[in-house]
Amino acid sequence: MTPEQKLTSLGLVLPELPKPVANYVSYKRAGDMLYLSGQGPRRNDGVMHTGKVGKDVTTKQAYEHAKLVGLGLLAAMRQATGDLSKVEVIKVLGMVNGVPEFTEQPAVINGCSDLFVEVLGDKGRHARSAVGMGSLPMNITVEIEAVCRILP
Amino acid sequence: MTPEQKLTSLGLVLPELPKPVANYVSYKRAGDMLYLSGQGPRRNDGVMHTGKVGKDVTTKQAYEHAKLVGLGLLAAMRQATGDLSKVEVIKVLGMVNGVPEFTEQPAVINGCSDLFVEVLGDKGRHARSAVGMGSLPMNITVEIEAVCRILP
Amino acid sequence: MTPEQKLTSLGLVLPELPKPVANYVSYKRAGDMLYLSGQGPRRNDGVMHTGKVGKDVTTKQAYEHAKLVGLGLLAAMRQATGDLSKVEVIKVLGMVNGVPEFTEQPAVINGCSDLFVEVLGDKGRHARSAVGMGSLPMNITVEIEAVCRILP
Repeated sequence: MTPEQKLTSLGLVLPELPKPVANYVSYKRAGDMLYLSGQGPRRNDGVMHTGKVGKDVTTKQAYEHAKLVGLGLLAAMRQATGDLSKVEVIKVLGMVNGVPEFTEQPAVINGCSDLFVEVLGDKGRHARSAVGMGSLPMNITVEIEAVCRILP
Repeated sequence: MTPEQKLTSLGLVLPELPKPVANYVSYKRAGDMLYLSGQGPRRNDGVMHTGKVGKDVTTKQAYEHAKLVGLGLLAAMRQATGDLSKVEVIKVLGMVNGVPEFTEQPAVINGCSDLFVEVLGDKGRHARSAVGMGSLPMNITVEIEAVCRILP
Repeated sequence: MTPEQKLTSLGLVLPELPKPVANYVSYKRAGDMLYLSGQGPRRNDGVMHTGKVGKDVTTKQAYEHAKLVGLGLLAAMRQATGDLSKVEVIKVLGMVNGVPEFTEQPAVINGCSDLFVEVLGDKGRHARSAVGMGSLPMNITVEIEAVCRILP
């Protein structure tokens, strides 16, 4: 099954790639490496999920937000390559807008990591850091960026 | 116009590359990739801009600080290559020392992104994350690191 | 002296590489680049050092924690290559779980940077950012990730 078929079988649809909110691009290629800009949890209606995880939002809710970010990152990979089977995820930086006492960043960012492995298989497995930020743009709950490799 | 001529036309002068404040180097090359250490907003007299954005410092002031950091990063690119026309900016991580409620990180980091595009043209366009930190060294307002590619 | 001999002369033993606490891998290779997942300060008995630096933990203590993280990262480099003399450290992102007023992140992350240079020599010198996070997994004091190059 191709990654695109896998998405369909999971009932998932890649979103329109959101327009960057400032003077940068959604992804940039350097040789066979692909750098993806950080994305937030955008719902289908364009509204972003906001709030501090550990206070306004639970870990379980934030897991779903991270999955939504993962879907946006897959959309960027797809637009950059035209074919998700050519993409290997190398490194993920998962940033959670948590309260200072929040400690479950890995459980949140799994929402994205699990999706990558589910859709891309072994090529979705990646090195990762999952950490807590002091604040995030628009008070979004989660922001995730990634480095990928494009296979020949 | 070369990037160096563009800088002159903008009335901008590349600063002396600041000496790293600890056991690391300002930049490191790996093949044709160039990794730049995080820099802070250093004025010409060597004093760093400090304070929490959203409380001690406004978004507009912090935009100017991010531009100052961008100038320092251009100085590092220039020292690493001897010729800014050989540099393509790939990825920027913009880190703002904001209060927990701060939400305008992209507007701050634009100070750096706008400068890169102004000086380097299309080669200055980059993937990016702009996020809020819990704290920064010496309480500086902004710290930015970048990954570049050196063209043959 | 090889890096492995240097470790022995310093009385240091590489730890078992900790099992990732979620759906990711400890390191991932892309061509000759090696991306290392963020690690925390794990003692020999498996217990992690926790607390906010600047309140529960001093800068000097956190320096030792960062050194412990560095040892874990060297263990990952060693497992990925089988030979530390083939590893060049390119970029380090050092993340400190500090209180909002904390300003000595560079002095903390030196614990890792000093170790890399001591064990790997000039190949241990790297570009770096040392910053303060809002929170970290399990409330660990320090988390550090790195990008390395594998020499032929």
